[in-house]
Amino acid sequence: MKWKLAARSEKMNPSVLREILKVAERPGIISLAGGLPSPRTFPISAFAQACAQVLDVNGEAALQYAASEGYGPLREAVAHMLPWDVDPAQVLITTGSQQGLDLVAKVLLDPGSKVLVETPTYLGALQAFSPMEPDPVSVASDAEGVLPDDLRAKAAGSDARFIYLLPNFQNPTGRTMSEARRAAVVDAARQVGLPIVEDNPYGELWFDQPPPLPLTARHPQGCIYLGSFSKVLAPGLRLGFLVAPKSVFPKLLQAKQAADLHSPIFNQRMVHAVMQDGFLDRHVPTIRALYKHQRDVMVDALQQEMKGMDVEFNKPDGGMFLWLRLPQGIDTVALLPKAVERGVAFVPGAPFYADGGDPRTLRLSFVTASEEQIRQAIAALADAIREQLAHIAAARTEQLLADAPAP
Amino acid sequence: MKWKLAARSEKMNPSVLREILKVAERPGIISLAGGLPSPRTFPISAFAQACAQVLDVNGEAALQYAASEGYGPLREAVAHMLPWDVDPAQVLITTGSQQGLDLVAKVLLDPGSKVLVETPTYLGALQAFSPMEPDPVSVASDAEGVLPDDLRAKAAGSDARFIYLLPNFQNPTGRTMSEARRAAVVDAARQVGLPIVEDNPYGELWFDQPPPLPLTARHPQGCIYLGSFSKVLAPGLRLGFLVAPKSVFPKLLQAKQAADLHSPIFNQRMVHAVMQDGFLDRHVPTIRALYKHQRDVMVDALQQEMKGMDVEFNKPDGGMFLWLRLPQGIDTVALLPKAVERGVAFVPGAPFYADGGDPRTLRLSFVTASEEQIRQAIAALADAIREQLAHIAAARTEQLLADAPAP
Repeated sequence: MKWKLAARSEKMNPSVLREILKVAERPGIISLAGGLPSPRTFPISAFAQACAQVLDVNGEAALQYAASEGYGPLREAVAHMLPWDVDPAQVLITTGSQQGLDLVAKVLLDPGSKVLVETPTYLGALQAFSPMEPDPVSVASDAEGVLPDDLRAKAAGSDARFIYLLPNFQNPTGRTMSEARRAAVVDAARQVGLPIVEDNPYGELWFDQPPPLPLTARHPQGCIYLGSFSKVLAPGLRLGFLVAPKSVFPKLLQAKQAADLHSPIFNQRMVHAVMQDGFLDRHVPTIRALYKHQRDVMVDALQQEMKGMDVEFNKPDGGMFLWLRLPQGIDTVALLPKAVERGVAFVPGAPFYADGGDPRTLRLSFVTASEEQIRQAIAALADAIREQLAHIAAARTEQLLADAPAP
Repeated sequence: MKWKLAARSEKMNPSVLREILKVAERPGIISLAGGLPSPRTFPISAFAQACAQVLDVNGEAALQYAASEGYGPLREAVAHMLPWDVDPAQVLITTGSQQGLDLVAKVLLDPGSKVLVETPTYLGALQAFSPMEPDPVSVASDAEGVLPDDLRAKAAGSDARFIYLLPNFQNPTGRTMSEARRAAVVDAARQVGLPIVEDNPYGELWFDQPPPLPLTARHPQGCIYLGSFSKVLAPGLRLGFLVAPKSVFPKLLQAKQAADLHSPIFNQRMVHAVMQDGFLDRHVPTIRALYKHQRDVMVDALQQEMKGMDVEFNKPDGGMFLWLRLPQGIDTVALLPKAVERGVAFVPGAPFYADGGDPRTLRLSFVTASEEQIRQAIAALADAIREQLAHIAAARTEQLLADAPAP
């Protein structure tokens, strides 16, 4: 029996990230790879109470089919919590913000459409866009995000459908777009008529001060905004949302209806119940405090363990990830199995680049492992790097000897 | 700000079904329109117990990110409950079986690909396929399902990617494919090398005897099978599954991962907990008994109220729907607002046809409304039909008078 597949299926290949996560699941491996929130932050008893309440008070409605837009009071709560004027009618509840990416791709991307992305960008977004067969184009980026001039240059005459941006504590780099850069990027996008898809799963996870206003708050007619409950409550409920201008909302809603009819109404009512009485205002600061401490532990461990090696890393202002660049000659894809042998997993940076990656980069999560595990894992990673550097040096010496003229 | 949409977005239009459901939500309207299971069948206390247990015993795992394939023990339970030899590795848990349709379309359909469907077919499947821009082709069908000869004729030389079939208590007609027809359809599909996508959301809802074996059980290498927990437990959890041959499973899994990472693991663990100790074996017979009684009430009401009018209807052996064909001259789309004025909503049949619909047909659900409501609604529907027939007769008389030669 031969199955003829769609052309797009050829481009759908096993995710590198996914295969790595499998390796990292082996017992005894400390994983700094996955983007898993710390389970210590899950408000289990609040959920237990919310479940009981929802089933007791509205059991039948919570278990029945529901509207594709999402649960009305939850849409209102989302509109209310966003820092610009959002009509609940513009809010679409999605099955995780990953589904928001799928819907955006379906509605906006034709095969061969250009889609502009950061350098590097979120791998899961590239995967979500991929079935619509676009042509992703990297926009040059620095520590503050994409460069407005390159955005203009890449957008000009390219029929790009949108630029995908993750301004807060970006996945994978942990970097944050500054106030000045936000203003300049929005200006540039507005000037060239390029829509922005703004992904903000981590924005609430700031450590010392909230990040600047979202891009969408500055230009709501030109932006689709994606948000998530995964990082402030729990990812296992798969609830996110998008906010779209009224000109594109109906198409996104139709794509949503065709994709899964609606997101689980039980989960929506449960999250709405948990959010009552300012729960997030009390809960989220506990996540911020924990993650800030874990970032400090990781930065401290890196400073100690990587001393004397040419290793660059940042100190993110929030979120879950930190970005490393290792010494010349090291390929982090080759390093990974060596690190796993020593009991630590990470994600190589190359897959996060739309076109050609820097093989010396890697992503570390500082939120899932404990303080003690972080210290142990960073020491193991440093050992693996040292070993790799020694191998490289030995290979070079051998080569030099081989190349040397015979005595 | 101008948004340039993908070509496929032009084909994504507001669902007729959806707009009708909105009308039917008005207070005072008895809806025989939606495909909503009776909320009386939702095992609310079993869910409450399962929620508490899952959060108590495995709270952290139930709220964390999880594998795209689905929760292992639930995949095993699905494989175990199906009546052919299924490896759990072939089972993919989906966000409702609607998502199964989305994934199948992504993996198998190119723009312009032919996809064969029944006459009529499930509207939600046409909507799920639509973003991939296929060309749906109706295969002639009778009371037992598609005709194998026409299947062969339509498949021959057409590069059709698959045929979509709903053999048990079909949506919208309520019809069931006989044993002999199943054998003939599988033979024909096998002969022309045409894959089958078999959708079976209603199979467990049989009234007097179980339906014949699924098509997939007869030809597992040539079929993708879609199932759902929506009709045996509750739709509000959005959990379904698909079973695919090992040759296409990896692509479906990759499409799933890109679409929403995974279906809510909390819901998967909850459903798995509810299913322990043979719960479905005790619970599903209560749904069967209720729905059988409601079918009998509706058939009885139709026999009484439609007496003397040329109204044809069937008596389904299971499921949720019954199919009517009204007298010559009546268009059920025009009839609907008249029926709603009289307090009853239904779904016109035409949107369920891939190419050109029979305007005299309509779908009734016998499961959501109560016995008393069903009797009241069918009487109101009969009144609306009578009124419409009187209008038609009056218009005809007027036309005859106008056409008559002057005296």
